[in-house]
Amino acid sequence: DPSNPKMAAKVPDIARKVDVLLGNLEDAIQTENKVAAREGLIRIAKETNFGDTQLWTRINSLDSPWMLDDLTRLVTEIGDKLEVIMVPKVEGAWDIHYVDRLLAQLEARAGLKRPLLVHAILETATGVANVEEICAASPRMQGLSLGPADLAASRRMKTTRVGGGHPGYVVRTDPDAQHPDAPRPTAQQDLWHYTMARMVDACCANGILPYYGPFGDIKDSVACEDQFRNAFLMGCVGAWSLHPSQIDIARKVFSPPVDEVLWAKRVIEAMPDGSGTVMMDGKMQDDATFKQCKVMVALARMLATKDADLKAAYQF
Amino acid sequence: DPSNPKMAAKVPDIARKVDVLLGNLEDAIQTENKVAAREGLIRIAKETNFGDTQLWTRINSLDSPWMLDDLTRLVTEIGDKLEVIMVPKVEGAWDIHYVDRLLAQLEARAGLKRPLLVHAILETATGVANVEEICAASPRMQGLSLGPADLAASRRMKTTRVGGGHPGYVVRTDPDAQHPDAPRPTAQQDLWHYTMARMVDACCANGILPYYGPFGDIKDSVACEDQFRNAFLMGCVGAWSLHPSQIDIARKVFSPPVDEVLWAKRVIEAMPDGSGTVMMDGKMQDDATFKQCKVMVALARMLATKDADLKAAYQF
Amino acid sequence: DPSNPKMAAKVPDIARKVDVLLGNLEDAIQTENKVAAREGLIRIAKETNFGDTQLWTRINSLDSPWMLDDLTRLVTEIGDKLEVIMVPKVEGAWDIHYVDRLLAQLEARAGLKRPLLVHAILETATGVANVEEICAASPRMQGLSLGPADLAASRRMKTTRVGGGHPGYVVRTDPDAQHPDAPRPTAQQDLWHYTMARMVDACCANGILPYYGPFGDIKDSVACEDQFRNAFLMGCVGAWSLHPSQIDIARKVFSPPVDEVLWAKRVIEAMPDGSGTVMMDGKMQDDATFKQCKVMVALARMLATKDADLKAAYQF
Amino acid sequence: DPSNPKMAAKVPDIARKVDVLLGNLEDAIQTENKVAAREGLIRIAKETNFGDTQLWTRINSLDSPWMLDDLTRLVTEIGDKLEVIMVPKVEGAWDIHYVDRLLAQLEARAGLKRPLLVHAILETATGVANVEEICAASPRMQGLSLGPADLAASRRMKTTRVGGGHPGYVVRTDPDAQHPDAPRPTAQQDLWHYTMARMVDACCANGILPYYGPFGDIKDSVACEDQFRNAFLMGCVGAWSLHPSQIDIARKVFSPPVDEVLWAKRVIEAMPDGSGTVMMDGKMQDDATFKQCKVMVALARMLATKDADLKAAYQF
Amino acid sequence: DPSNPKMAAKVPDIARKVDVLLGNLEDAIQTENKVAAREGLIRIAKETNFGDTQLWTRINSLDSPWMLDDLTRLVTEIGDKLEVIMVPKVEGAWDIHYVDRLLAQLEARAGLKRPLLVHAILETATGVANVEEICAASPRMQGLSLGPADLAASRRMKTTRVGGGHPGYVVRTDPDAQHPDAPRPTAQQDLWHYTMARMVDACCANGILPYYGPFGDIKDSVACEDQFRNAFLMGCVGAWSLHPSQIDIARKVFSPPVDEVLWAKRVIEAMPDGSGTVMMDGKMQDDATFKQCKVMVALARMLATKDADLKAAYQF
Amino acid sequence: DPSNPKMAAKVPDIARKVDVLLGNLEDAIQTENKVAAREGLIRIAKETNFGDTQLWTRINSLDSPWMLDDLTRLVTEIGDKLEVIMVPKVEGAWDIHYVDRLLAQLEARAGLKRPLLVHAILETATGVANVEEICAASPRMQGLSLGPADLAASRRMKTTRVGGGHPGYVVRTDPDAQHPDAPRPTAQQDLWHYTMARMVDACCANGILPYYGPFGDIKDSVACEDQFRNAFLMGCVGAWSLHPSQIDIARKVFSPPVDEVLWAKRVIEAMPDGSGTVMMDGKMQDDATFKQCKVMVALARMLATKDADLKAAYQF
Repeated sequence: DPSNPKMAAKVPDIARKVDVLLGNLEDAIQTENKVAAREGLIRIAKETNFGDTQLWTRINSLDSPWMLDDLTRLVTEIGDKLEVIMVPKVEGAWDIHYVDRLLAQLEARAGLKRPLLVHAILETATGVANVEEICAASPRMQGLSLGPADLAASRRMKTTRVGGGHPGYVVRTDPDAQHPDAPRPTAQQDLWHYTMARMVDACCANGILPYYGPFGDIKDSVACEDQFRNAFLMGCVGAWSLHPSQIDIARKVFSPPVDEVLWAKRVIEAMPDGSGTVMMDGKMQDDATFKQCKVMVALARMLATKDADLKAAYQF
Repeated sequence: DPSNPKMAAKVPDIARKVDVLLGNLEDAIQTENKVAAREGLIRIAKETNFGDTQLWTRINSLDSPWMLDDLTRLVTEIGDKLEVIMVPKVEGAWDIHYVDRLLAQLEARAGLKRPLLVHAILETATGVANVEEICAASPRMQGLSLGPADLAASRRMKTTRVGGGHPGYVVRTDPDAQHPDAPRPTAQQDLWHYTMARMVDACCANGILPYYGPFGDIKDSVACEDQFRNAFLMGCVGAWSLHPSQIDIARKVFSPPVDEVLWAKRVIEAMPDGSGTVMMDGKMQDDATFKQCKVMVALARMLATKDADLKAAYQF
Repeated sequence: DPSNPKMAAKVPDIARKVDVLLGNLEDAIQTENKVAAREGLIRIAKETNFGDTQLWTRINSLDSPWMLDDLTRLVTEIGDKLEVIMVPKVEGAWDIHYVDRLLAQLEARAGLKRPLLVHAILETATGVANVEEICAASPRMQGLSLGPADLAASRRMKTTRVGGGHPGYVVRTDPDAQHPDAPRPTAQQDLWHYTMARMVDACCANGILPYYGPFGDIKDSVACEDQFRNAFLMGCVGAWSLHPSQIDIARKVFSPPVDEVLWAKRVIEAMPDGSGTVMMDGKMQDDATFKQCKVMVALARMLATKDADLKAAYQF
Repeated sequence: DPSNPKMAAKVPDIARKVDVLLGNLEDAIQTENKVAAREGLIRIAKETNFGDTQLWTRINSLDSPWMLDDLTRLVTEIGDKLEVIMVPKVEGAWDIHYVDRLLAQLEARAGLKRPLLVHAILETATGVANVEEICAASPRMQGLSLGPADLAASRRMKTTRVGGGHPGYVVRTDPDAQHPDAPRPTAQQDLWHYTMARMVDACCANGILPYYGPFGDIKDSVACEDQFRNAFLMGCVGAWSLHPSQIDIARKVFSPPVDEVLWAKRVIEAMPDGSGTVMMDGKMQDDATFKQCKVMVALARMLATKDADLKAAYQF
Repeated sequence: DPSNPKMAAKVPDIARKVDVLLGNLEDAIQTENKVAAREGLIRIAKETNFGDTQLWTRINSLDSPWMLDDLTRLVTEIGDKLEVIMVPKVEGAWDIHYVDRLLAQLEARAGLKRPLLVHAILETATGVANVEEICAASPRMQGLSLGPADLAASRRMKTTRVGGGHPGYVVRTDPDAQHPDAPRPTAQQDLWHYTMARMVDACCANGILPYYGPFGDIKDSVACEDQFRNAFLMGCVGAWSLHPSQIDIARKVFSPPVDEVLWAKRVIEAMPDGSGTVMMDGKMQDDATFKQCKVMVALARMLATKDADLKAAYQF
Repeated sequence: DPSNPKMAAKVPDIARKVDVLLGNLEDAIQTENKVAAREGLIRIAKETNFGDTQLWTRINSLDSPWMLDDLTRLVTEIGDKLEVIMVPKVEGAWDIHYVDRLLAQLEARAGLKRPLLVHAILETATGVANVEEICAASPRMQGLSLGPADLAASRRMKTTRVGGGHPGYVVRTDPDAQHPDAPRPTAQQDLWHYTMARMVDACCANGILPYYGPFGDIKDSVACEDQFRNAFLMGCVGAWSLHPSQIDIARKVFSPPVDEVLWAKRVIEAMPDGSGTVMMDGKMQDDATFKQCKVMVALARMLATKDADLKAAYQF
């Protein structure tokens, strides 16, 4: 809540630790605090030097009574400090069309020199069904985030958790013919595989970036780490932290493991121009694995420029 | 088989235990019994008082020689008793267009006052590829069910099971570098995750209801319960029972667990208007989790009106 | 590399063991060898009698400098020996339109009597987002293969493996309330479920064939077998072997298990015309399971004509 | 009205003079005569030998109470005598989907060996907006006819005429600057140009045939001839006659003029393989005009096989 | 210009003579007057009692700097007096999406009880190419108007006229073979036939109303009448007057001719339920002409309720 | 025919008089001359200095045996001299996709620095039905030309003329009630209105240029001029001349009339910033007419830079 002075005071510290700082005006803000939160965010933005950290904002949803004033006030007052507008509960290209044109007019009025970008949060069944059109709806589109709690409610998924697994979603082995009454092991399944995979493809096909959403059980840092890593593996470039303790988890997960980076460097060294094929430790390497390794090393190199420990570990 | 007098005799009893009674004319009926089954269903419908239980029928498929007479006879004779027509093996919007217009003409001829609804069974690869268009093809659309056995055959899935997992679909852990020959644990995977997830989204995006299909291994009530629960978790509102023993499983699964309901009630109490954010037992709650809890409590409250035990357990 | 004389010498032997022999000109061939590989393939094709084994070729990608000469030379010189052109990195129907018309003109010039078919490799996020349109883009379409390494790179999946699972993609059970610090079992998840399932549907909806792609860790024959079996179960009709050792794995996996075949034969015998319903070993059988069993038995019968051992085992 | 004995008696005579005889059940039949007309058509069809003349029928519209019985009775009783079903007031592909599947089931029941074809009448604004989709909606599609009176009503065109021009649709020359009050000549315009042109393209793009509709002012044979000729010129292959007097007009108009046919024969003779270019009477001829001449001569030749006078005139 | 006191003074008078009064803020208003015009319109709207006459407004175009304030001010201040917002230069559904959502938020803020409707002006080539999507883009859509001057500029049509014909668009008769040098008559053509016809179909297919745009040559009342009549005949329900003198032309043209109305009444009388067929004065009448006559009589009857002279003439 | 030495000798002269010189390889070239024509064009291109005149080529159609070599030879040999490739008989986006990618590969091989552009000729009904998609199919698209002769044949239009009107396409006035047998004037209609109008919109909506096609009756310079002017008025930017005599007609027609240019200049002078409204000679002028006048004056100014007589006449 940007109107909370204690939270505002922590902003400079947090900004140093993250790539993006999000000024949230939506779900976590109480109805009676909506206007104060908006003005608080404006104040913080004006008073803070964010350095290399980007300032984003999550505005209220398009059918709420606050959204028009959110955009009008923020673009007019701090449009030059904002990078990305996160739009919650996007359902189709039509929602992006609205935000796109409204931003154009507010930017012109504010005399901004640089277009604001748009990030859509995918949190309804309709949004998932239209995800490719949403990604293609405007050149302002910067990325998508998955909003697992709203999406679960929209789909009538019978879970009250924010992201993560559910103990009831399992596949069980067949009974043992010899011991039909013996306990049968189960494997818990990922509730979000389809959603994440389709979202990543829609983003990559349109040149924009996929992010995972929040993980709600703040005490369960192990499951949070699992979820972040799953998203990272499937192609997400980041995740949202609800609590400072999750920032460190995110930093850890979204840095690729040292052994994978070293392996990727070996592959690249063995294939100077990426063509042909080599066997390394019994695994065939060709142009395709070369590209995978380039993805890995490029990320590692970028992180190493900001973090001396990683730089040493990755041996750059 | 509605022409089977023994089965017909059980109808009033079964009707009391279920929300929907399905008069099936399709796959389980032998060719030489098709006409008798149809007339048997008409007889049962005329003679039975179903109370609050809805009467649906599954007609023969659109490319069979019985379908036209199925609809003509049923709408003409018992159109006022039927709620929903289940159409098997729907492949695209064109199939719904056909049923839609044919119903319109038969209803007019029969002088019905209320439109019959249509429920499509998704049991071909083409149907899945067109699922969004199917859901949007007519205002009569009430819902979809997954037909896993036909769908498996259509996709050439190499399984002979009706729903459920398959012991061959596994992911295996990496070998242990120290003990490369040690057994490597496997986790069995859900064959139906993509299909179920996309179907639920298509339904929700069009305001209609998703159901799971049948589970064929009637003796394996544990795996049946798993499958029903998976469907329930992912957003289905019901499942089809092939045998009376599965009715009780369905009732149990599709009633949300008592502890989840009580938790959901606590969340709602803690957030009177759903805005803002609270921490409960270390889990962040906001507008999105509030909505998830509303889904849970709404279902529980509806079930409680029909079942005194549940009502007590849920503490309404 | 078809310009490698040692590899060329093995061709007649390998041809006897496989259904399709692939003359690869793309990723595994070094830049400086591209022309020699193309001419080597022409030489092999002219000099070898392939019997019943089909000769396919994987040409260089559509944006490479070799692709136009690949097609021109191959169709002109050995068009009558080739069955299928594999086109890598297909992103949309436009890519198929190009290959389709170019083949038409080269075939006319070469006086071929039979159209060459096209097989697209799905190895970009855009390709997956457009997979249905790709399958429908031309009557030449024969099938699709999944290319997991390029696809992973295109999606920024943080894995350097070619197919298979990844130890980081797991779902973890909830903590035990009594022993919150006890280790919590995890189940590894299938990274490729969505991609495979959507690809199979797109193929089946357009009457073409889905194949799995390669498995890169040649030493790990167990995980290779898992992956091949998963693909087989989900509807693929084949997989690509990178090494002779994988050919035997493929043969084993893509032959249905003896007990499933025998079961399927029993079901078919019990339902002469496929209508009605029977209970067998407590499992309900109807028209849908009958069709599943027909899929199984048809495949078994086809394999039995080529392999006396299988014929005996399947009891044909 | 096929229930009118006088009209029925004339059928054999008329059949000899036309290519297609249309058994109309729709607009011209009074409500109380609908059933009699249908049965009259069945009787006529059974009792008449039509020779080479095709029997078509125009059924009642899809939202009328007679349409289902129209199709059921006609296909069952005289399906082997009918060639084409004309469906009035088609609005979109969905209407064709309905007729297509219903015909499939009635044909199967009647044991017909040959599929009935479908001809859609374009007589609503929605139909024109969807005309391309209508043409592509089923392989049964044989052609389209324009229904100008219904279409005018659907568009709120303020004319009460059936086809033809309207004296109010004119373009007027500018005033003469010297004589500003002099009468200013007007040129009457074709109300149907857009509709006809788009309909012809939609048909040709889908390999089906465009027809003009009726001309209502039976006394005005000159304007009828104009309209038929306009349709012929723009690409229609026929028109509907409302009265025997219009049959002769149609025969005359739809036979290409003798001088154009002789010219077309000269062009074809001058360009043996259609390539290159020649000048004839100062008009450039090339592959494109060669094709136009082939259209003209092919039609003339076909008509000459049925009419000795035309044969002589066209000098075949 | 609503800021012009002389014009404002005439408003009550004009309002009595027209069905719709348009408060224009766009093309005719000079840049420096934009804000004054907007405020003038607000003043007029507040001070005037419009009776049955609707108040519409044409706002500035979506890419102008005034549009956002136009809507904000007008909806907030006089939203309860406005019926329809005319949006100029609409190019696609995306433009309507923007206006639709913005109106929703402004209406909510203003506490309006009734949704404002949207009328799009078609004045770009892109708009015409997307006209069907524009009509379907929102339930607020009330109608379309053709803007011939902007559209001509967008298409690079080489005319500087606002609507109407152009002396250069002619078709010429063939030379007379006997007198090859004799003058050859020409017929001037309608430049706007395609645009008007496609626009009318798009509107009717979506249940909204087509209007013609302005006619610029205010002195040429004859050509103005031609153009209005052409639009009326092709299905438009109204036209825009640029000058009081054109109001009377519009009233005259858009009232159907007395003889056509009397004829239509005779047809309706002769066909009590619209079925069957009758010959009247040699012209065949059936269900379709009956519908045309109903269109004509319905319009006449509506006009007669407002105008005693018309009532007498039409003999109601 | 570029292999004709006499024609080749005239090239430098003609090049001075036209904006674009077209090296035609298609319809006018005899089969046995196809290769010679292609090589003749290469020779001419290499030997001629075209100055400011662009060199285009019309290749053979995509389903001919010459097209692949046409492109291969021309791009390889004279790719640096060519601006635009005209592709005949384009039917859909798929045809453009083919040419687009083939050009990409040939350009890369030839080391060209500048992409070749593509101009599609619209000469089939399918092409017209797909014209919007064709225009949008590639960033190489430069424009469209109408090919009236092939298009007429594709539509079965019963005319053997290349462009222009047809004496049979007329609208006739109603009979005079007093003199029913008096001759009734007719107005000939434009066969090409729909096609031209839709083509112009498709081009403008995609930022590419529409051209008219050829006029075949070379002796009838008056009708040629009519047709060119109609195209100019409706938005075309040029037309193709089949004969040197038509070049002068085109130059005359495509230069706007002096009085219209002078009028347009007056309008622009009277409205300095284009806003507001003025009356000039009784015609209302506003932002829209201002834009029309800008189109006119911009064209005149561009032509004046090349032609001193026009410059004087237009008074620049």
